[in-house]
Amino acid sequence: MKKTLFLAALLGFTLSSKAQDSLMLRKFYDEALVNGQAYDNLRFLCKNIGQRLSGSAGAEKAVIWSKKLMDSYGFDKVYLQEVMVPHWVRGAKEQAYIIDGNKRIAVPIAALGMSVATPKEGITANIVEVKSLKELETLGEAAIKGKIVFFNGAFDQRFIETGHGYGAAGIQRFAGPSAAAKYGAVGAIVRSITPALDDYPHTGGTVYMDGVPKIPAAAISTLAANKLSTMLKLRKLPLIKFYFKQNCQTLPDVKSYNVIGEIKGSENPNKYITVGGHLDSWDLAEGAHDDGTGVTQSVEVLRILKVTGYKPKNSIRAVFFMNEENGHKGGIKYAEQAAANKEDHIAAIETDEGGFTPRGFSFEGVSPTFLKELNKQWKGLLEPYEADMLVAGGSGTDIGPLKETLPSIQLIGFRPDSQRYFDIHHTPNDVFENVNKRELHLGAAAITSLVYLIDQHGLRF
Amino acid sequence: MKKTLFLAALLGFTLSSKAQDSLMLRKFYDEALVNGQAYDNLRFLCKNIGQRLSGSAGAEKAVIWSKKLMDSYGFDKVYLQEVMVPHWVRGAKEQAYIIDGNKRIAVPIAALGMSVATPKEGITANIVEVKSLKELETLGEAAIKGKIVFFNGAFDQRFIETGHGYGAAGIQRFAGPSAAAKYGAVGAIVRSITPALDDYPHTGGTVYMDGVPKIPAAAISTLAANKLSTMLKLRKLPLIKFYFKQNCQTLPDVKSYNVIGEIKGSENPNKYITVGGHLDSWDLAEGAHDDGTGVTQSVEVLRILKVTGYKPKNSIRAVFFMNEENGHKGGIKYAEQAAANKEDHIAAIETDEGGFTPRGFSFEGVSPTFLKELNKQWKGLLEPYEADMLVAGGSGTDIGPLKETLPSIQLIGFRPDSQRYFDIHHTPNDVFENVNKRELHLGAAAITSLVYLIDQHGLRF
Repeated sequence: MKKTLFLAALLGFTLSSKAQDSLMLRKFYDEALVNGQAYDNLRFLCKNIGQRLSGSAGAEKAVIWSKKLMDSYGFDKVYLQEVMVPHWVRGAKEQAYIIDGNKRIAVPIAALGMSVATPKEGITANIVEVKSLKELETLGEAAIKGKIVFFNGAFDQRFIETGHGYGAAGIQRFAGPSAAAKYGAVGAIVRSITPALDDYPHTGGTVYMDGVPKIPAAAISTLAANKLSTMLKLRKLPLIKFYFKQNCQTLPDVKSYNVIGEIKGSENPNKYITVGGHLDSWDLAEGAHDDGTGVTQSVEVLRILKVTGYKPKNSIRAVFFMNEENGHKGGIKYAEQAAANKEDHIAAIETDEGGFTPRGFSFEGVSPTFLKELNKQWKGLLEPYEADMLVAGGSGTDIGPLKETLPSIQLIGFRPDSQRYFDIHHTPNDVFENVNKRELHLGAAAITSLVYLIDQHGLRF
Repeated sequence: MKKTLFLAALLGFTLSSKAQDSLMLRKFYDEALVNGQAYDNLRFLCKNIGQRLSGSAGAEKAVIWSKKLMDSYGFDKVYLQEVMVPHWVRGAKEQAYIIDGNKRIAVPIAALGMSVATPKEGITANIVEVKSLKELETLGEAAIKGKIVFFNGAFDQRFIETGHGYGAAGIQRFAGPSAAAKYGAVGAIVRSITPALDDYPHTGGTVYMDGVPKIPAAAISTLAANKLSTMLKLRKLPLIKFYFKQNCQTLPDVKSYNVIGEIKGSENPNKYITVGGHLDSWDLAEGAHDDGTGVTQSVEVLRILKVTGYKPKNSIRAVFFMNEENGHKGGIKYAEQAAANKEDHIAAIETDEGGFTPRGFSFEGVSPTFLKELNKQWKGLLEPYEADMLVAGGSGTDIGPLKETLPSIQLIGFRPDSQRYFDIHHTPNDVFENVNKRELHLGAAAITSLVYLIDQHGLRF
């Protein structure tokens, strides 16, 4: 009997690293699924604070709440990192309609972030519909001058991950208004960038080019875009005009903060693994999936590590970045400070693609050899949790600047299921009710697992 | 130049089987994602027909609509397969409350399918709370006689796939009422089988044992179950009573139908690959995810094969099974007829776990060798579509009986993401609005792909 116990003890001591990892992952998942707090935290953020666009009172409240939350968890260090952010305000609700002779057909519209206002009386003009920036170029000034350009390139449904469709169609929103202004357009309206067909306008940032007049730019719903396009096809162009009025403006920059919580590493306190999402949101709703889920998951990672008694070798940070949506000043500031403080960053993981069921992670700029070895080592550990898609790909806007200041860092993007994200992205429908508790908590557990594996084994593949 | 063309032609002819398969899959996905009709069909089924419990007017309408739909697609053969089904009706809405002294606290309740009614005046009795059938056994007749047994075993959140949690907790609903009746209980109420905490009661079938009195049985919402449990803990038991009244009854069996559409095989017309879901639904809502998505995906598989010009070697069938929810008479009939008609069935695939993002398929009763070879051959083809989880596991209630009558058949279950399914399962919230178009269509494409691969290469691993 004693011999058996002795053998068992021996076996215990020689429990393979894989088996130990496997036990730890199960512990993280149990904690997340049974006692997870991300969902309740998200409810508070959405329902008691709500929209929190950079510079707004909501953003300020969110910063205070976030610090208090991290303090309550008793992390080794919780602090604010100051950063100046843009302060764009939407003003009174936009108005828009299609003018068809005597008829006026109301159009769901939302000014694009950072857009200028229309004149007080609004803009009324003829419309030029284009499906791409290329088509705009071929039309040139003769066709465009004095008109409103209607960017109506559709979301390509054929991509399996909707992020690819968003990237492809998104160029119209980012670059379209300035491209139209170059040819003398007086305004730009953009088909909402979404695979869904409904009446939500999707806002989102646009970027004005230097040296080109800033023209008012707004998104209209996909149903309205279809209707307008059909009307333009059926009727003679000069009979159809478009009217819109918006009241947005950019005020002076405002002081704000990234919120940072930290568990100190037991072996390498100056080596960091950062997990983050962004605390700011667009102003149309509660920023639930974008990116309330990301920040509540990030802090949950630290909470899970702490309550399961795991002592990390390296320092683990949760960062709530400010101002991802219209300027990403928080991400830039964090990268600058990390370099200035000579912090050695092993990896940064961003969660900003919604709080849906986790599928895996994408690793930025890795070689096929890295990917092969990574999968060989860790895929099997994540497979029982169905979060084992470990692929090459992008990471995130907030952590991107770290690559500039700390070139040896590995950037990683959390990859949840992408199908529903762009249905609600940047709309009044991005609310708490559209987040599923289990999906959110599974994501937190998946990220915790990856942080643990990196902390234990590094990322030298 | 000519030489190059000749070489290219040669290369074309020698395009590997894998490359051809890969091209076909892409074709199926493009068709599903760009021109898919499952979503519009589902809208009609949910909004114009609605609930369709076996024996109801809704079920009859659904049969007529389904046949018309298949006819409109011009399949080689469309027909109805007669089957007698149970006809259970809920009657007037149930009522329930907790009686706490003079207070009455309303409880969201729904009779379990196939349950008997309470007496007209309802049942009022003391409550015995148990967390499992085992706990019930240990209490025995002395504690239970004359009482209402309250089955309050919680859904185990630790399973990654919710189906496992459903199976584990589900035993209370299936077998609990009869087990309680054995010890003289006068009624049974069951905590709704769901990971969600809300006010929806989840109905679902219960099964009465022969030789035991049939007692009224109902499900209460998880929030109500928590409240009741807390009250029982805080107050002395005799002070708390429970009242419920339900008006359900089982009428004589009704003639109904499975609806079957077929594309004839070019090489083996008497070999079949069957894809199916169930046309009936519970009566509380529209049966969107359960199982409107399954039937609309099944017919979509045949439509996609047809419009992409694929000529199957074997006959491909879409089957809309009747009466999965309370008797699965449709599945039994289909299996009997397949055997009676000496049809050779290669495989049957069931889609009855919701219309969520596809993750893969589970193969019933396969060996590790089969699974290994299956993954070696096909996983890579399905990986670009993120539907490549090919595992051993269950298939479905409707196709299950085929294994009895045609033992050489391979049964396969379609595996969508499982996280949200049991939140809405069997509730008033199982409505069209909770189905995502892309997720539904990705599922149809995944199943089409598997049908194609089986048709091309068989299932001999």
